Amino acid sequence: MKRKDYDDALDELALELVGMARWAKAKGERIVVIFEGRDTAGKGGAIKAIHGTLNPRQCRIAALPKPSEDEKTQWYFQRYVAHLPSAGEIVLFDRSWYNRAGVEKVMGWSSEDEAQHFLRAAPIFEKMLVDDGIRLFKYWLTASQEAQEERFKERLDDPLKRWKLSPTDIAARDLYADYTAARETIFAETHTAWAPWTVVDFNDQKRGRLTLVRHLLDRLPDTHVEPEAIEWTPLGHDPLTEDFKVLRPIENFPVKD
Amino acid sequence: MKRKDYDDALDELALELVGMARWAKAKGERIVVIFEGRDTAGKGGAIKAIHGTLNPRQCRIAALPKPSEDEKTQWYFQRYVAHLPSAGEIVLFDRSWYNRAGVEKVMGWSSEDEAQHFLRAAPIFEKMLVDDGIRLFKYWLTASQEAQEERFKERLDDPLKRWKLSPTDIAARDLYADYTAARETIFAETHTAWAPWTVVDFNDQKRGRLTLVRHLLDRLPDTHVEPEAIEWTPLGHDPLTEDFKVLRPIENFPVKD
Amino acid sequence: MKRKDYDDALDELALELVGMARWAKAKGERIVVIFEGRDTAGKGGAIKAIHGTLNPRQCRIAALPKPSEDEKTQWYFQRYVAHLPSAGEIVLFDRSWYNRAGVEKVMGWSSEDEAQHFLRAAPIFEKMLVDDGIRLFKYWLTASQEAQEERFKERLDDPLKRWKLSPTDIAARDLYADYTAARETIFAETHTAWAPWTVVDFNDQKRGRLTLVRHLLDRLPDTHVEPEAIEWTPLGHDPLTEDFKVLRPIENFPVKD
Amino acid sequence: MKRKDYDDALDELALELVGMARWAKAKGERIVVIFEGRDTAGKGGAIKAIHGTLNPRQCRIAALPKPSEDEKTQWYFQRYVAHLPSAGEIVLFDRSWYNRAGVEKVMGWSSEDEAQHFLRAAPIFEKMLVDDGIRLFKYWLTASQEAQEERFKERLDDPLKRWKLSPTDIAARDLYADYTAARETIFAETHTAWAPWTVVDFNDQKRGRLTLVRHLLDRLPDTHVEPEAIEWTPLGHDPLTEDFKVLRPIENFPVKD
Repeated sequence: MKRKDYDDALDELALELVGMARWAKAKGERIVVIFEGRDTAGKGGAIKAIHGTLNPRQCRIAALPKPSEDEKTQWYFQRYVAHLPSAGEIVLFDRSWYNRAGVEKVMGWSSEDEAQHFLRAAPIFEKMLVDDGIRLFKYWLTASQEAQEERFKERLDDPLKRWKLSPTDIAARDLYADYTAARETIFAETHTAWAPWTVVDFNDQKRGRLTLVRHLLDRLPDTHVEPEAIEWTPLGHDPLTEDFKVLRPIENFPVKD
Repeated sequence: MKRKDYDDALDELALELVGMARWAKAKGERIVVIFEGRDTAGKGGAIKAIHGTLNPRQCRIAALPKPSEDEKTQWYFQRYVAHLPSAGEIVLFDRSWYNRAGVEKVMGWSSEDEAQHFLRAAPIFEKMLVDDGIRLFKYWLTASQEAQEERFKERLDDPLKRWKLSPTDIAARDLYADYTAARETIFAETHTAWAPWTVVDFNDQKRGRLTLVRHLLDRLPDTHVEPEAIEWTPLGHDPLTEDFKVLRPIENFPVKD
Repeated sequence: MKRKDYDDALDELALELVGMARWAKAKGERIVVIFEGRDTAGKGGAIKAIHGTLNPRQCRIAALPKPSEDEKTQWYFQRYVAHLPSAGEIVLFDRSWYNRAGVEKVMGWSSEDEAQHFLRAAPIFEKMLVDDGIRLFKYWLTASQEAQEERFKERLDDPLKRWKLSPTDIAARDLYADYTAARETIFAETHTAWAPWTVVDFNDQKRGRLTLVRHLLDRLPDTHVEPEAIEWTPLGHDPLTEDFKVLRPIENFPVKD
Repeated sequence: MKRKDYDDALDELALELVGMARWAKAKGERIVVIFEGRDTAGKGGAIKAIHGTLNPRQCRIAALPKPSEDEKTQWYFQRYVAHLPSAGEIVLFDRSWYNRAGVEKVMGWSSEDEAQHFLRAAPIFEKMLVDDGIRLFKYWLTASQEAQEERFKERLDDPLKRWKLSPTDIAARDLYADYTAARETIFAETHTAWAPWTVVDFNDQKRGRLTLVRHLLDRLPDTHVEPEAIEWTPLGHDPLTEDFKVLRPIENFPVKD
């Protein structure tokens, strides 16, 4: 997809996202969006596309670190529950509780039993949230191994992206089919009427982002809320300038001639 | 500043930021960067410029909501302390404890006494963190009222930015000089050898970001750490394709012909 | 019940409690005990009887304060989930999520709809915890209004107990029947195979405590775990005395002749 | 000290404690009491004596578990700060930040450097809290090795107390003098005008508790606040009885004839 077309389309969606956030605040709505998918699928970029247009005090990213030793022994959902939204909040989960039946299962960090237990529990857990009025959206971002290989290579070669390449990623190259199988099991067990999965093709990441955001917006009810009127009056005097006494600004970054 | 020049310069800085983050992780460094300044100065954009290049599991934004009734009665620093970094983490504070002597003081939400008390406490609090090995950077972003007025107007007129315009912003128009005075007091009381303020001119926001990041990087020691070697082997088979049985991707966002 | 008989019986139970806690730690068991019942029923005393014999770093009391404004808008169970046990922990809930269909309902702080919603959700929530391996016990302590009146009067007259008498208590005097009705509804909706209620007569509080603890112990499997052997050797020298240089103990509390 | 004399004296102190708590709530006071001292000195019992008379929703015990791997890398005071009181709260620390220069130092879990660093930081940290209006009390409970040996032996022999006997305790037998030295260093460095230590002789634990509570109460200002008047009216009808339809109380614990 061409950059210009993407930018134009994204600008239009951004407007709707901003309107949606105003609505969520006015109505006390709570929104949870889960981003799952293979490494390199484009979860981080999709999250940034949404988060970047919204008030960071209203829209939070939940990207949980590895669980501590204590957390590992707790109810599996406990540490995620702590990040659920209050009224008006939008929480974007960069990976989620599905780790248990995804990466943890494929990498052997959780047992077959634990994964099975999780797959039975997840729909029930999610139904509780949805019944409580939380709007829950689950997106699965997909990409072919060809695209994945390209992106891994890019991470390897581009020093800006090198931090994205983890040992788990390297392992994922040989586990592409296992991840496919894990995903299919997740879908079979947790694609429910109250919390359905939506699969989005991220072989073209820009287009994938537009597809995802368009879909998300379409699944919300009419979110139109008029912005509060603001009375704007002339300043009534010449604008003031900064007045430094104690400290002065440092020298500006040099601009090329 | 021209977009192209900015992008080129930012790319170079991004490389160094990524290297710095690798170093922080390898050495267990803890880094706190405080972003303060007038509304519209460009705190959010500067934070995004840094955060966007780094691993969100390593670099966190701390943008605290209003304190709860209980929190208001606690030790003023308590709710900020909860966001301080563990080993390897970089925390970007979008506003900070300086609220007390800044917006709270100017808007009359904290008393003169509370502001005074805070100003005596802040340098001591910061010295404790610095003595503990936390690297603390405090940036103050400045802009003239002319720039501020333009940006407020833009927030008013641009539906994408309307959410940034709060009643506190409107009040700030008449309080420009009070904010200047509050800032000067803050500098006079809290610009210390161990936690100095750095003032950055954000009348040109792009240039301001470059100035700030360049300065931040220059204040760190040699952060060179070689990335871990990764053994990259050929895949050994044709790349696999996604194989959907339970659910298929939804239709892609339409592309114009 | 006579004090002497009570003390003897409690000592025996304490031994078993201590053994149970050793087992919980050794096996990584997680135990949750909910204490519900009318004001004055004796929840606090029963909790202290258990907590007082166990290691306070293993056995925690969860007596949650009023929810903050933000918490009120969250998933109802969220703030309780934060107190669920890690491996080896025993958590005693002094009141619990049942507030929603109990005191909140009777006092009109939650709506009929919210109470109904809660009553449908609670058994599902509890099943998730139980399926996850948490051992969940729910005790309802009962007392007649005659006993309640006596105890309220005692709280009124005994300055040591005056703090226990709240406006909600006073209101409870006229609402005895409403509390009965609320309890019956709770039992009808949330007495489940996986998380049954146990009603304990606390008209005699000492006897009630013994009944409750005996029942709790009987519902656990064989909890025998041998304490770790400790090699105890003679000290090998005369015992040392405290040696004060900087500060000395203050004068002891005077003892009557 | 005789049980009867102790009980009488404690009852009188309990009355004052209750009055003090009422005052703390009415005035929004925040109170922190630190209990330090050798193993077996009697910290737990002293804490229970206070906590047992007060409202557990107002008076909290902070008995922190071992730090997690992440917490170990944070600012040392961070995890303690999370437990500081809000307005009206009384927090009893069962051990505290002094672990760093006490047990951690003696057992070699923290380095000489870390202990030194802590000893410089603690008075500054405490001054911040005190300057903020928190009332901070630091008690050190002492006992001779003779008493300690007796109590260790009791822990070994009494199955009810066996859980109190840890490997660290056993190690403490050979380290009595090291603990003395560590304590003297702590006093030398952290006995300040704003947060002085009070040493209490706990060779007789009952008397020690009385001494400590008496001292604590004497260091507070006039805490007299009249309890809120409560209008007590007759019930107006015969007291109601419990009315069970869904579930009935289980059989009472048998009483000997």
